[in-house]
Amino acid sequence: MEFVAKGLQGYFRIMLININGVITGKEDAKVSVFDRGFLFGDSIYEVTLTYDYVLFKLEEHFDRLWESAESLALHISHSRKELTYEVNKTLKQLNEKRAYVRIIITRGEGMIGLDPNLASKNNVIIICKSLPENPNWWYETGVEMIIANILRNPKESMDPSIKSGNYLNNVLAYAEAKKQGAFDAIMLNRDGFITEGTTNNIWMIKNKEIITPPLGAGLLPGITRQTLIELAKLKNLPVSEKNFTRDELYSADESFLTSSTKELVPIVKINGKSIGSAVPGPLTRKLHQIYKDHVQECVKQGKNKLFFTIFPSDSD
Amino acid sequence: MEFVAKGLQGYFRIMLININGVITGKEDAKVSVFDRGFLFGDSIYEVTLTYDYVLFKLEEHFDRLWESAESLALHISHSRKELTYEVNKTLKQLNEKRAYVRIIITRGEGMIGLDPNLASKNNVIIICKSLPENPNWWYETGVEMIIANILRNPKESMDPSIKSGNYLNNVLAYAEAKKQGAFDAIMLNRDGFITEGTTNNIWMIKNKEIITPPLGAGLLPGITRQTLIELAKLKNLPVSEKNFTRDELYSADESFLTSSTKELVPIVKINGKSIGSAVPGPLTRKLHQIYKDHVQECVKQGKNKLFFTIFPSDSD
Repeated sequence: MEFVAKGLQGYFRIMLININGVITGKEDAKVSVFDRGFLFGDSIYEVTLTYDYVLFKLEEHFDRLWESAESLALHISHSRKELTYEVNKTLKQLNEKRAYVRIIITRGEGMIGLDPNLASKNNVIIICKSLPENPNWWYETGVEMIIANILRNPKESMDPSIKSGNYLNNVLAYAEAKKQGAFDAIMLNRDGFITEGTTNNIWMIKNKEIITPPLGAGLLPGITRQTLIELAKLKNLPVSEKNFTRDELYSADESFLTSSTKELVPIVKINGKSIGSAVPGPLTRKLHQIYKDHVQECVKQGKNKLFFTIFPSDSD
Repeated sequence: MEFVAKGLQGYFRIMLININGVITGKEDAKVSVFDRGFLFGDSIYEVTLTYDYVLFKLEEHFDRLWESAESLALHISHSRKELTYEVNKTLKQLNEKRAYVRIIITRGEGMIGLDPNLASKNNVIIICKSLPENPNWWYETGVEMIIANILRNPKESMDPSIKSGNYLNNVLAYAEAKKQGAFDAIMLNRDGFITEGTTNNIWMIKNKEIITPPLGAGLLPGITRQTLIELAKLKNLPVSEKNFTRDELYSADESFLTSSTKELVPIVKINGKSIGSAVPGPLTRKLHQIYKDHVQECVKQGKNKLFFTIFPSDSD
């Protein structure tokens, strides 16, 4: 398929889409209306990024992709090696230092019907695009969140630990936030506990204790969330997974959110209420620095590990 | 666009797809991977059918489509008249007496992100295909159902009254049924009450009382469900919307499901337990006959109402 990729230069460079191995531009990136991802949201996905051409934590994202697949009994016909090859092929062509990478796997196409057996062959879509640096003000000023009225999907119905194409629950929560001019929405479960943001995990700091809701609250096991738990433990910082309510969050000393592409973003207001002194807190800044150091370490290691590395000069 | 339609004959006749006004065959029926319907299931849809070339209850399906749209704050840029024109155009080209009609409206395409404002223009997909008669055994022998372990999405998270592209909850329930060799799955809510089947409404008959769960249980307001409630009332048959549990359903005299394309299908076993004498019950049969008479009346009226009628001879 390399000849297909070679044909695309210039115009498409800022965004490339790999559809079942064929690299294309935005205009030609299409799937069948009979794809179950389109009909039912019957798909799974992951989003990661590259730092200085190095794919970040691809193994961890693959782990979660395969867990989502297992929860939905969605057979992934590709091996990790094959998927890695396709991601790398696309990124090489894109040739951007900092790139957004979305890997979507659908159950495939077939006659219309809920029966998963109607589809037999995945569609694999890899979207790679240039990823601008995040705005400085997120980190310098911090962001304002709301608590959404809509509750997070419960585990018994649509388990939030599955990263699937069913994202309306989150879309509706996000729309509430936008309507109020907020950065994003924090979602509660039916028991009144904080679960997560619409595409990120939520943290609070109280009396120097770093707390994030446990997976049992019904949330996505964030890669950045898990990384930060491990990094904090390594640094002997008190970190725990514990349920907390909206009121406990309001009275926190600091709060922040985590996501792969956003890293750590300080939360300074929630529903109009100031968190701590309404500026990014010292422990949040410290944790972000620890995280950034970890990223640099991963990038350094990645540079020596060809399998996960795309050098712009690495021609085939 | 009529010239596009005219070019497609023979091979594609059994299935035609109208994408934003352009009629195409199965192979070319595609949408962008940046369509929010594909990325997030951020779409709404309706399914109806034609009887003898007459579109059945299109107004009622449009009512529900617009209600789904309102719940999601998804702006439909087409008028009902425009959508009707496109459906009729496609059906005319298909030229099948009995056709399946699926109308899908997505929030549109845009940059990837949860924010609904990232898309500005709907994609409208109308899938029309020949619809074979339902198997006789469904009605003669009745079908076996299971009660799914997965619970129906609660109204507070993802309201089941919205007919959207988020259908994994139902897909997973259906998969449970298939695994056990059942026809379909019945889903409970968190309070232990019956809600609905994965693509149909559920009914029980006890001591001649005809009962279906109320909308408050968390279910789709089925068109056939509403029609049957009204028809039963007209015939002075005792019908009510009341919550019932799995155990009450087991002890029913009769049970059946309703859907636009399936009409009334007797349920004779649930989780291996016989309902009544495990054969289609007399009141179920009577109700189905009442429904079929109503369909015939609608078709007769439709034939005199050009707006909803597609005569094969009705050339332009």
